Amino acid sequence: MQLGLIGLGKMGGNMAERLRRGGHQVIGYDRSPTSPRDVEDLPALVAALEPPRAVWVMVPSGEPTRATITSLGEVLEPGDIIIDGGNSRYTDDQLHAKALGEKGIRYIDAGVSGGVWGLTEGYALMVGGDVGAVSVVQPIFDTLKPEGPGGFVHAGPVGAGHFTKMVHNGIEYGMMQAYGEGYELIKASPLVTDPDAVMSSWQQGTVIRSWLLDLLVLALQGDPGLAEIRGYAQDSGEGRWTIEAAIEHAVPLPVITAALFARFASRQDESVAMKVVAALRNQFGGHAVGKAGTEGAVPIT
Amino acid sequence: MQLGLIGLGKMGGNMAERLRRGGHQVIGYDRSPTSPRDVEDLPALVAALEPPRAVWVMVPSGEPTRATITSLGEVLEPGDIIIDGGNSRYTDDQLHAKALGEKGIRYIDAGVSGGVWGLTEGYALMVGGDVGAVSVVQPIFDTLKPEGPGGFVHAGPVGAGHFTKMVHNGIEYGMMQAYGEGYELIKASPLVTDPDAVMSSWQQGTVIRSWLLDLLVLALQGDPGLAEIRGYAQDSGEGRWTIEAAIEHAVPLPVITAALFARFASRQDESVAMKVVAALRNQFGGHAVGKAGTEGAVPIT
Amino acid sequence: MQLGLIGLGKMGGNMAERLRRGGHQVIGYDRSPTSPRDVEDLPALVAALEPPRAVWVMVPSGEPTRATITSLGEVLEPGDIIIDGGNSRYTDDQLHAKALGEKGIRYIDAGVSGGVWGLTEGYALMVGGDVGAVSVVQPIFDTLKPEGPGGFVHAGPVGAGHFTKMVHNGIEYGMMQAYGEGYELIKASPLVTDPDAVMSSWQQGTVIRSWLLDLLVLALQGDPGLAEIRGYAQDSGEGRWTIEAAIEHAVPLPVITAALFARFASRQDESVAMKVVAALRNQFGGHAVGKAGTEGAVPIT
Amino acid sequence: MQLGLIGLGKMGGNMAERLRRGGHQVIGYDRSPTSPRDVEDLPALVAALEPPRAVWVMVPSGEPTRATITSLGEVLEPGDIIIDGGNSRYTDDQLHAKALGEKGIRYIDAGVSGGVWGLTEGYALMVGGDVGAVSVVQPIFDTLKPEGPGGFVHAGPVGAGHFTKMVHNGIEYGMMQAYGEGYELIKASPLVTDPDAVMSSWQQGTVIRSWLLDLLVLALQGDPGLAEIRGYAQDSGEGRWTIEAAIEHAVPLPVITAALFARFASRQDESVAMKVVAALRNQFGGHAVGKAGTEGAVPIT
Repeated sequence: MQLGLIGLGKMGGNMAERLRRGGHQVIGYDRSPTSPRDVEDLPALVAALEPPRAVWVMVPSGEPTRATITSLGEVLEPGDIIIDGGNSRYTDDQLHAKALGEKGIRYIDAGVSGGVWGLTEGYALMVGGDVGAVSVVQPIFDTLKPEGPGGFVHAGPVGAGHFTKMVHNGIEYGMMQAYGEGYELIKASPLVTDPDAVMSSWQQGTVIRSWLLDLLVLALQGDPGLAEIRGYAQDSGEGRWTIEAAIEHAVPLPVITAALFARFASRQDESVAMKVVAALRNQFGGHAVGKAGTEGAVPIT
Repeated sequence: MQLGLIGLGKMGGNMAERLRRGGHQVIGYDRSPTSPRDVEDLPALVAALEPPRAVWVMVPSGEPTRATITSLGEVLEPGDIIIDGGNSRYTDDQLHAKALGEKGIRYIDAGVSGGVWGLTEGYALMVGGDVGAVSVVQPIFDTLKPEGPGGFVHAGPVGAGHFTKMVHNGIEYGMMQAYGEGYELIKASPLVTDPDAVMSSWQQGTVIRSWLLDLLVLALQGDPGLAEIRGYAQDSGEGRWTIEAAIEHAVPLPVITAALFARFASRQDESVAMKVVAALRNQFGGHAVGKAGTEGAVPIT
Repeated sequence: MQLGLIGLGKMGGNMAERLRRGGHQVIGYDRSPTSPRDVEDLPALVAALEPPRAVWVMVPSGEPTRATITSLGEVLEPGDIIIDGGNSRYTDDQLHAKALGEKGIRYIDAGVSGGVWGLTEGYALMVGGDVGAVSVVQPIFDTLKPEGPGGFVHAGPVGAGHFTKMVHNGIEYGMMQAYGEGYELIKASPLVTDPDAVMSSWQQGTVIRSWLLDLLVLALQGDPGLAEIRGYAQDSGEGRWTIEAAIEHAVPLPVITAALFARFASRQDESVAMKVVAALRNQFGGHAVGKAGTEGAVPIT
Repeated sequence: MQLGLIGLGKMGGNMAERLRRGGHQVIGYDRSPTSPRDVEDLPALVAALEPPRAVWVMVPSGEPTRATITSLGEVLEPGDIIIDGGNSRYTDDQLHAKALGEKGIRYIDAGVSGGVWGLTEGYALMVGGDVGAVSVVQPIFDTLKPEGPGGFVHAGPVGAGHFTKMVHNGIEYGMMQAYGEGYELIKASPLVTDPDAVMSSWQQGTVIRSWLLDLLVLALQGDPGLAEIRGYAQDSGEGRWTIEAAIEHAVPLPVITAALFARFASRQDESVAMKVVAALRNQFGGHAVGKAGTEGAVPIT
């Protein structure tokens, strides 16, 4: 089928390629003039598509996505469909669907997993929206998704797709941290002579084998002992939203939250909380403290 | 090759079967007269094996394993090899190796992962011991392990095998809890109409696909919504030892520890700590509290 | 000075009493006709006060507070001051100040700690707003606060008062949980013959002596071993907001979050996450599980 | 009464002083010739005391304490009493009591809280041992303890004193971390103009007022904003043992454990676990990573 696709970066570009290989006609637009775009602005995109149109938005989440959807709403027509495939927050979806619905434009949120591997392995899709709109776009979903029975779910009404993707990422935080903690402990023990070989051996037959473990082994092959990489991790919003959703529903998420906090801590030069702890130990016990700016070990007293 | 195998229960029985299918001669012993044992006591086991003998111990960890190894040490001869394939603590290995070494008996610790799936899929093996002893038993390891380049690692000297298996289980705790938290949050949200379908869709193309996820989908197929199973989990020691090892090496393990504590909490009728919290809230704020033995919600005040 | 006070419940009633003892003229209003109110509606309250008026709102946080402030905004005049003394979220303060500011009405947020003990011991106050408005109401703050140099802080502009009170409550969550965990561990050990006596002994000379510990000892005197109280705790919003603020600023709060999650868990009949863990253990290891609805211990396998 | 006291350092020296002011005769010994010791070796100490002797050991925990108690056991006589006032693990107490008991020497373990403030404020004491032995030394305890009804507990048989002190320290870890997290969040928010003033205001009237908070305010007065102190904290064993005891009894301690792990993390240059997380994010999503040795922020991708 025919699809407008806005955003031809790392993700959007590969998705356009997979869709074209699958026989779809993709009209691509990107605000960058140096991108491989097919049209030069949104009106041209709209003009190039047969109604009812389907336009997939694949731009950075937050303000860029919100602005793009608002602009699209001004040029599309009743009956057209917007799919937000970015990492938007599910609460944004509900606002978009309401505003667009007043103009007769339909809205679908699609959480997309796959990253740099999606072009060849397919993208896992978690979709929210009404049945009618989803069924129109289903041929696109079918081509993007990986082979096999899984890789696609229509999770519920608008917002359910991004909600589900958000939780997926929350689980991902927990799993990555679990592997990280295990690897750290193995490296800390003098017993294990080749920690990287342990990781690699775990790829077959163990309870903890997974695609993430396979990726870790790939990373270790390129950087033995992870000597070249900093212990510093960003977060892109979905871990935070997962915890906020958990708080809203009074669900305890100790593991996912610990994983997020470990990332926060990795980005701090120093913990202010620990300054308090050090200052208190000094006050009540006369314990030695370190002076700000120094780096060596502080003696145990 | 020839192998003595002590313990013909769920794990040991299947391992014997896999070894025999692989062309090895297994002489099995189990203290239970109703087991399919080949010999009736340890001396008979020793008599049935050609020196230098290799005897695999596959009995419950803790006292049963310690007692079996001690008894074996009394009947084996210098040059023989004992392999402890149970879930022993690595610190026990070091004691066993020392005691047996004084008699010239060699010792290998083998962490084994695979559970009920090992017979067909193979057992992942994490082995500790000296190179000479390990090379003697290598044909056995090669048959037990799954196909593929992984599934076996000689992790280091005595203790390294069980240490590695212990950390494997710690990671497993974290991963299982991560999936559990995600599933709980999805069920708690009214947005997602079919939480089980989400889990199943995640099996392809996602970052979090794994064997554990496949097992979760199997479990959900047999018990939709996990309605029939209690939220109650035991722990078998290795999660605890992982944290104790982390404490010894001053490694923070927030995720693995949170997963262990969640299991502890699942086995409590009630949290004594939370009694303290409730009593304090009542003292300073006059907040409502529940009376022991009642079950309904306590009003927010 | 003269003060209008809306809300004559547990907190507001005691505050009115403390203010009157301190020589202030308090005109009280409460929507309940059976309350000891001085006036029967907001217009009457406004009429009874000399401009520029100061009106303290002490009603339940959330919708009741928002509605009261909106209504007040319609009857007060430029130059008047509203003080929100409830447990409002600091983000609400910023909205209120903006809306009222357009009418020339000034706004102060005051976080109040003290609970049922405030009448006699004084209320700790954390105040946000501009210096001019705060200085007008300072005589009220001076009477409400406890004796001594502390107990009052003008923490910053509008919102800073409730933000500070929110963090105060977050710390309180962590402290209460710390005492709870310690008491639980002491009760779990067979070594300590009288856990309640330990708590009481800690009131003098220890590093952990505190007002909360004093309250715990009071609670234990009335209910030895906390046998009569359920291990069930509500939360009233400020713990949740603390974590949301931490997420906004990328500050790790492992202790405060663990304390909130322990409360969430205390209100669950059962952990869905733990159902997942139990189901997985059964799948890969054949471990025994409990059937939903049963209560006894599940054997370790 | 008469007391032998071994160890005249920061703690022991002040305790000797407090006891002498209270009218007791203290014979002090320390292995350092430059200490204000009264005798030059253990035999001289024994000779200087009237039987039945009471000797208080106040040396660093671990090997120094174990060696001192062993040596004392060789020179004391049946009926004499050893009190270990150091931060020994309760499991050591049980070994010491057994070994000494075979010689008829009685043993008491005394957990001591008070640090540098104990000389003037008194030392909180948590004591384990049999009633007969404790009653002999009670005059010493009565002088060391602070005024008031609290500050002393005979917690149970041998080991109960140090067990109780250990849990006290565990609670202390949690409380200190709770204050630290709150202070960090307040500093991270642009709303609060003077975080140190907030801390100081909390000393009166709040739910979270405590001696630790008083000490924090003292520290902030000497080092505003804690600008001069490093966010680096050692731990002295008791936090670790608390968690190990909790694991033994299957008691969840999320708050106390999070506090210990925060200290561990504060001493790491870098988190190996976070290297794993960063490497995985790079593998699946092409997310930017930092190169080891660099320090700036890694862009969010």
